[in-house]
Amino acid sequence: MRFRNKPWAGEKIAQYPQYVIAAPEEHKGKWHEVFGNNHPLHIEVGTGKGRFITGMAEANPEINYLGIELHQGVLASALDRLIDAELPNVKLLNVNAAELLSYFAKNDVSRLYLNFSDPWPKTRHEKRRLTYKTFLELYEQILVDGGEIHFKTDNQGLFEYSLVSFSEYGLLLKDISLDLHNSEFEGNIMTEYEEKFSGKGNRIYRCEVQYRT
Amino acid sequence: MRFRNKPWAGEKIAQYPQYVIAAPEEHKGKWHEVFGNNHPLHIEVGTGKGRFITGMAEANPEINYLGIELHQGVLASALDRLIDAELPNVKLLNVNAAELLSYFAKNDVSRLYLNFSDPWPKTRHEKRRLTYKTFLELYEQILVDGGEIHFKTDNQGLFEYSLVSFSEYGLLLKDISLDLHNSEFEGNIMTEYEEKFSGKGNRIYRCEVQYRT
Ligand SMILES: C[S@@+](CC[C@H](N)C(=O)[O-])C[C@H]1O[C@@H](n2cnc3c(N)ncnc32)[C@H](O)[C@@H]1O
Ligand SMILES: C[S@@+](CC[C@H](N)C(=O)[O-])C[C@H]1O[C@@H](n2cnc3c(N)ncnc32)[C@H](O)[C@@H]1O
Repeated sequence: MRFRNKPWAGEKIAQYPQYVIAAPEEHKGKWHEVFGNNHPLHIEVGTGKGRFITGMAEANPEINYLGIELHQGVLASALDRLIDAELPNVKLLNVNAAELLSYFAKNDVSRLYLNFSDPWPKTRHEKRRLTYKTFLELYEQILVDGGEIHFKTDNQGLFEYSLVSFSEYGLLLKDISLDLHNSEFEGNIMTEYEEKFSGKGNRIYRCEVQYRT
Repeated sequence: MRFRNKPWAGEKIAQYPQYVIAAPEEHKGKWHEVFGNNHPLHIEVGTGKGRFITGMAEANPEINYLGIELHQGVLASALDRLIDAELPNVKLLNVNAAELLSYFAKNDVSRLYLNFSDPWPKTRHEKRRLTYKTFLELYEQILVDGGEIHFKTDNQGLFEYSLVSFSEYGLLLKDISLDLHNSEFEGNIMTEYEEKFSGKGNRIYRCEVQYRT
């Protein structure tokens, strides 16, 4: 993802507090208040331009969605989608996933999505991968017991690494597809990166893992 | 694998008891006597024509190898290879893997190889897959603590199924390659099926899993 300098992004985000939560730390342990119901909360870490999270919210009105995105410029594009879609069950957070514990308490989140996370292919950057053990530990501290991570990527190296990392952490592999777009998986909602890289002929890998209870 | 009627196969096998162990149940718990040393024993289940096991034995003289193959006609081809290779550290068993406990005691085996196992794609045949939980249980009862299974296949469905089955059983995924022939894996020894199906352009999948101690 390229980050153009977008000075207007911050201003725009501030104008839509109903879509981009302004002080997320205030909702820790009580996200249901933000949505006005007790539906389960699913979050996506590294939402990018928001195609997936908006599509999921549209398809699953009984689930609440939060897209977490670090970069304002990209988040502004996701915000545009939300403004167009006018959905009550999807919102955005402009925060760093490394600080999830500031915003979420244990059991706040029922499921976590990782889509086309940055691969950080160099070994010395392993700790930055969103499937590195310290992140798996973070996720565990905000998920319900038996909570799941659903992960998609076209990056073979990151997928291989992540399967091993999940296993080492003790996560249960519940489902896997080594070629999602030629599988029996139904209801797939594409992300921006998924459309781009599958269009180039790349295979899409997908798995679901679960924290053991 | 097609099984032509080979009436001579049984006779031939009987002529080479130094290569095809005649009464394997007699060696249960004391396979080192058969090889005349205390080297670790690695077995391959479903050896086919023996290219892999012979190549491994040649490359690793400090390991003892046993190839297990149900069908006499196929085993006879593996025997031909062994006769040619004249190696002291590889032998064959003409038995059914479902009966491993008749021939091996706990700790007899240090590592188990599965290569291009029959996929049994129909759900009603799941129990026949060599990575089904009852087989994982069998293997555990003959392997050393922390013993490993090394598995290769070009069959995407079987590989996906097996990763889930391994995880459900509690095995640790130590290494995985989703495209073995374009990976950094060194010293790969091809099987007959591997040569055939990679020649047709199929990807080869490989993983190493370990029983938790
Ligand atoms: C490769 S993009 C994929 C975007 C989108 N998920 C898709 O599939 O089209 C990765 C995104 O994750 C975001 N990201 C990376 N690290 C993050 C972090 N620690 N916290 C929040 N977002 C992060 C990046 O800013 C980028 O937008
Ligand atoms: C598809 S072939 C693969 C052969 C070889 N591993 C290769 O990669 O070229 C599978 C082999 O496993 C053998 N096999 C299947 N089930 C078996 C069992 N229960 N016990 C022993 N051998 C078995 C079959 O007879 C066949 O030779």
